[in-house]
Amino acid sequence: MLSFFDDRVFREASHLNGFSGNVIERWSEARDEASFGSALASADAAIYLFLEDRALLRAEGGLLAPRFTLKAAEALGLERDTLILLGVTGEGPRFAGLVRAEIGRPETIKAIDLRSLAIQAVLETHDLAALAQARSYLHWHAGSRFCGRCGGPLHMLRGGIGRACAACGSEVFPRVDPVVIMLAVDGERCLLGRQPRFAPGMYSALAGFVEPGETLEEAVRREVKEEAGITVGRVAYHSSQAWPFPSSLMIGCHAEALSTKVERDAAELEDCRWFERGEVRLMLQGTHPQGLQVPPQMAIAHNLIAAFADWQSA
Amino acid sequence: MLSFFDDRVFREASHLNGFSGNVIERWSEARDEASFGSALASADAAIYLFLEDRALLRAEGGLLAPRFTLKAAEALGLERDTLILLGVTGEGPRFAGLVRAEIGRPETIKAIDLRSLAIQAVLETHDLAALAQARSYLHWHAGSRFCGRCGGPLHMLRGGIGRACAACGSEVFPRVDPVVIMLAVDGERCLLGRQPRFAPGMYSALAGFVEPGETLEEAVRREVKEEAGITVGRVAYHSSQAWPFPSSLMIGCHAEALSTKVERDAAELEDCRWFERGEVRLMLQGTHPQGLQVPPQMAIAHNLIAAFADWQSA
Repeated sequence: MLSFFDDRVFREASHLNGFSGNVIERWSEARDEASFGSALASADAAIYLFLEDRALLRAEGGLLAPRFTLKAAEALGLERDTLILLGVTGEGPRFAGLVRAEIGRPETIKAIDLRSLAIQAVLETHDLAALAQARSYLHWHAGSRFCGRCGGPLHMLRGGIGRACAACGSEVFPRVDPVVIMLAVDGERCLLGRQPRFAPGMYSALAGFVEPGETLEEAVRREVKEEAGITVGRVAYHSSQAWPFPSSLMIGCHAEALSTKVERDAAELEDCRWFERGEVRLMLQGTHPQGLQVPPQMAIAHNLIAAFADWQSA
Repeated sequence: MLSFFDDRVFREASHLNGFSGNVIERWSEARDEASFGSALASADAAIYLFLEDRALLRAEGGLLAPRFTLKAAEALGLERDTLILLGVTGEGPRFAGLVRAEIGRPETIKAIDLRSLAIQAVLETHDLAALAQARSYLHWHAGSRFCGRCGGPLHMLRGGIGRACAACGSEVFPRVDPVVIMLAVDGERCLLGRQPRFAPGMYSALAGFVEPGETLEEAVRREVKEEAGITVGRVAYHSSQAWPFPSSLMIGCHAEALSTKVERDAAELEDCRWFERGEVRLMLQGTHPQGLQVPPQMAIAHNLIAAFADWQSA
């Protein structure tokens, strides 16, 4: 008998996307203020450090090490009031914090943005995922200093799980902004666009923030219509990706085009057109004659596009 | 030849969920400050009104009418500085605004919460969806009076699409909080729990907010582990729902249980156990001998549970 789940060989597409594979147990609900102190006192506590939006890494014999002891973190300029508890792993508690910008640091300490780290795939999966979690939290805390409701100062709650206002009692929790990213498909063609900020020759799937009061599928149809003038019918979920720039949840879908005439939103896209499957394969392989390309393998757009390019009808 | 999309008869599960079917074109990117005024001056402009979190409706010959002219809205106590443009429909622009609490209103004007309106299904689908969009926006504007970054006052941007700070230049946009809601399945059984705040006898799927730095599937596994102690393997997306209380995006999944011993988080759930498919069918039909029930049809939990109960192996 078939199980309720599909009996095809199981490969979770979200695992293909960079920043997946986090092993930190957050236990956000179970925490209290005391667990922060006891976790920090633990001999196997480790801290992910950031200089603004870039991760600090220790260059050690050709490798990059992303975790620091409390003592090492303090020597590198840790701002103690930014320190948050990410959660616990089998190898001890994990923290994140910002370092002061003006402090001098040894040559062996590198500050690298997470996009580069993900593209170069130089870290272990679980460390890269933890850095993504850390960057989103640190960015949110840094931008959530005052209460939206009354304007009073916010203080940190339960080791950084949220922030609270002493004046009006409001509690706030980190934002995660859902974004739909979708590949519209018309038979043997898919729709790719390029934003002015893209690297030369780069084309990608269309994307946009989910707005209040719509389903994912409605958001997909709205965005493809707004950006490319294309009407979309069926929408099929493919995978999702945590995207820490600063804190999005990318939700990737394939979308069936019901119209074909592209009417590009010139404010958003500098080009947008249909690409035949053969051309897309060359872009994925890096062998396109005009050097056109798609985003790197760590990006959900790459995996959405590859799923279309590789698909074989039964 | 098969299309890239599955060739089963297409029924988008998200359409089953309450608040879907919005027909308002938001065109958020294309707006400027002037479009608000010209839309409001339009003869077919209509306003959805709220008294705090409840929609105002006009009882007319046994029906409830949810849209008001500007003149009618002002007579009912519209606070002009809360007025936002939701977007445009084929029948004209649509706005939303709050009315003052202290003003007297005729007996024929009812204030009803959106959950009741969705359960009773007394409105047209597109009006209910527009009310969901309106409530999320109005709630966000009301709670976003001050800049999180500098504490300065925020003002409305482009007819309510966001808010901006004159002091530091920050722009902020409405939050949509992604929530995973999942039905863990173990062969012929599914996992249901009840929160203390539920109506007597009500059981539902487990749910929780997606946190920064995780995929949807990772969030599903974390929540089921945290709330019920159950290990989950495969995760299958089912549907999504805009949930305007105040502004969530419910993302519904089925999840394959890899363990069976329930260890309930007593702070979250007052009961959590496996239910056989036969028992679930009685709950869905409203014929359970002990009167146990599942959420109403407008809720994504209902449709997740019904998809499991109705599923037939091939």
